[in-house]
Amino acid sequence: MDSGFDFDHYKDLLEKKQYQKLRKELPEQNEVDIAQFIESLDKKMSTLAFRMLPKDMAADVFSYLASESQQFIIESITEQELSRIVEDLFVDDAVDILEELPANVVSKVLKNAQPETRRLINQFLKYEENTAGSIMTAEFIELRKNMTVGEAISRIRQVGESKETIYTCYVIDDFRFLDGVITVKDLLLSKDDEKLEKLMTTMVIKVMTSDDREDVAQLFTKYGLLAIPVVDQENRLVGIVTVDDAVDVLEQEATEDFEKMAAVLPYERPYLKTTVLTHAKNRIVWLMVLMVSSMITGLILGRHEAAFAALPILITFIPMLTDTGGNAGSQSSTLVIRGMAVSEITPSDLGKVLWKELRISLLVGFVLAMFNFFRILLLHTGGMKLAFTVSLSLYATVIFAKTIGCSLPVFAKITRLDPAIMASPMITTIVDAISLIIYSSLAVKLLGL
Amino acid sequence: MDSGFDFDHYKDLLEKKQYQKLRKELPEQNEVDIAQFIESLDKKMSTLAFRMLPKDMAADVFSYLASESQQFIIESITEQELSRIVEDLFVDDAVDILEELPANVVSKVLKNAQPETRRLINQFLKYEENTAGSIMTAEFIELRKNMTVGEAISRIRQVGESKETIYTCYVIDDFRFLDGVITVKDLLLSKDDEKLEKLMTTMVIKVMTSDDREDVAQLFTKYGLLAIPVVDQENRLVGIVTVDDAVDVLEQEATEDFEKMAAVLPYERPYLKTTVLTHAKNRIVWLMVLMVSSMITGLILGRHEAAFAALPILITFIPMLTDTGGNAGSQSSTLVIRGMAVSEITPSDLGKVLWKELRISLLVGFVLAMFNFFRILLLHTGGMKLAFTVSLSLYATVIFAKTIGCSLPVFAKITRLDPAIMASPMITTIVDAISLIIYSSLAVKLLGL
Repeated sequence: MDSGFDFDHYKDLLEKKQYQKLRKELPEQNEVDIAQFIESLDKKMSTLAFRMLPKDMAADVFSYLASESQQFIIESITEQELSRIVEDLFVDDAVDILEELPANVVSKVLKNAQPETRRLINQFLKYEENTAGSIMTAEFIELRKNMTVGEAISRIRQVGESKETIYTCYVIDDFRFLDGVITVKDLLLSKDDEKLEKLMTTMVIKVMTSDDREDVAQLFTKYGLLAIPVVDQENRLVGIVTVDDAVDVLEQEATEDFEKMAAVLPYERPYLKTTVLTHAKNRIVWLMVLMVSSMITGLILGRHEAAFAALPILITFIPMLTDTGGNAGSQSSTLVIRGMAVSEITPSDLGKVLWKELRISLLVGFVLAMFNFFRILLLHTGGMKLAFTVSLSLYATVIFAKTIGCSLPVFAKITRLDPAIMASPMITTIVDAISLIIYSSLAVKLLGL
Repeated sequence: MDSGFDFDHYKDLLEKKQYQKLRKELPEQNEVDIAQFIESLDKKMSTLAFRMLPKDMAADVFSYLASESQQFIIESITEQELSRIVEDLFVDDAVDILEELPANVVSKVLKNAQPETRRLINQFLKYEENTAGSIMTAEFIELRKNMTVGEAISRIRQVGESKETIYTCYVIDDFRFLDGVITVKDLLLSKDDEKLEKLMTTMVIKVMTSDDREDVAQLFTKYGLLAIPVVDQENRLVGIVTVDDAVDVLEQEATEDFEKMAAVLPYERPYLKTTVLTHAKNRIVWLMVLMVSSMITGLILGRHEAAFAALPILITFIPMLTDTGGNAGSQSSTLVIRGMAVSEITPSDLGKVLWKELRISLLVGFVLAMFNFFRILLLHTGGMKLAFTVSLSLYATVIFAKTIGCSLPVFAKITRLDPAIMASPMITTIVDAISLIIYSSLAVKLLGL
């Protein structure tokens, strides 16, 4: 289930200075594993190991290293070596790397880039975060519609080396307008003398540089694509997004949703690599906001202090009411948040969703309320009236919880907020207040307190 | 940002019986869009539209239809048409389709399959759900190591049509042992007379049929692959998993995690297509379990009824304490659950995680407790002792919440349960009980109630 990379073996070769053997064996491994291996070494050893790599592999391995290791290597290698790596990197990887590095290191990198590469990198650095422009690459294969299949294949064999993907090729005209796309599969399965014009797909699924990267990634899921072309405002081809980058986006966006649902600020680094202070900062904001909100709930309870003091058994039902309300609301909000994230639910479905949740809550709430009613009759001395008060409060709480839980994420989406902020913690806090208002009001009225 | 598919235009053509125009225009569209179009039609029209498709497109569009539409079409078309579709489907798609269909329809489909196809389908149906075997396909390109690049390319051009991917090819020996892999890019960028043996990668990242499909999907994320070979117990190549299926798995697994975190049973169909009764069934189980648990919390409160009756202002701090505890615990559990899902955290990190969360909770809890202490001093008449009791309870609650919140998902993982069940709802219920025990015990002791 893994690539069988043996860290210790290679570390051993390094330590025993068996460089020739290392130079021969290391390149046989996968670039991702080699990067992990280099990161596991101390600084001096890591530069040494990096320099063992053949030239055509160095840039690739470099792009998989963590920012700290990249910085250290940039500072350790010669300008000539650096220049070679910069030229070999795909523009999107170069941009990702530069965005994490300190300014002085960035200028060292750019100084060692060819003018054309520097121009491209600077252009790509301008695309806003979270857009298609920010995840696209410039290294793709361009063909012309009057080429034959044979000519196209020769062209690919000639220029394919430096391209991020060769499997989807882009047919453009003199003004870089996208005429169509053709896959290497289409080319290989056609006769050599056929014209691309006849074979290419003209109904191209494409995106704009300013489109949201999450929407772009969803297109890969929907259509099972390997690459998507990116065009500018004037419909000229400026780059492509490849499926590996789309997969990364999907993972990152899911992680961001989990973070929002956990009521923490977004993390820039993995859990274990984040300092205690940053962890604390990321968490305290929402904890404070929600704590202050729950104090308001406390004030509501305070207005009915007398009732609870008169019949203290009422207090014992508070956890059951607030927890069940919070859980019922979280169920609805989480399902709706996820449904919107994977485009199964759109804001226009609000009516349908509300109607569904209302019926679900009537059903679920009834079962829970009845269970409580008989439990209280059997186990408590408070009698019918108490049982009725608690059960009715629970029923109303579940109905409110589910209708609020399903609508708030949709309203968030409509007002261009992220639906995920309307997850569990927020819903629980809101529903707590509502359930206690219902409960204490009903208690005062029905039990005459 | 979309493929520009105009549903109304094609519906119009269907209704006006302009079949020739439809037959010409529809196939220019993407198969996924055509499937969506067919689903939007009524039963009779959908079969009509499906029959307008050219033969080489029908199976592909068919695989994207929902199960109900597939069943209806199977029942409407001739045995000959059905047979053609079954043969054209990729085995993994055929298996996915059959798993959703009623038994009588399945036997109609299998009756119309060639013996070899039937054998393959039956073999694939046996792989357990959620394994690599259940998502792999049998249509890949097999090459031999003594072939030249030129021979390999001719072979691909000859048999590529019916393969799910041609871009990664598998080099096997007479016993189907996997010698290596080679990509079409490697082939196209090499000279025609070179031997595959020299060019292929022998350090192959591969999986076993019984491996968990989520782990397999994570390999695609880690290595940016387009396909992974699947071998059996004897290391013989039996299939491949392609990146589009891996993307689907990642999406489905994230959805399952969201469902577990929402304390609902897994959904088989999208939110809007699930009936109210199924929704209710999926939700009531956990609501009931958690409700009964929170009743125990109520019993704890009940033991201290007298204290709350004697000093009813204590009641008003209950929502603040339980909510903040629940939120603090959910933050930790959600981050750890996600960290484990993306393999950033493993059970062996438990010590590190606990130590981190302990320090975070000491810091965060202190800020929250101090805020409360001064708020109570300023706004309440209860004085220093009350402020101290509430703040100390809050501090202890946050520390317990975070240490429990981060450890339970790890313990779940160790005992082979899904960590996601230790999410918000479960943690909130547990932390509620703990916070109220702390609060009422401290109140009794410190305030002398």
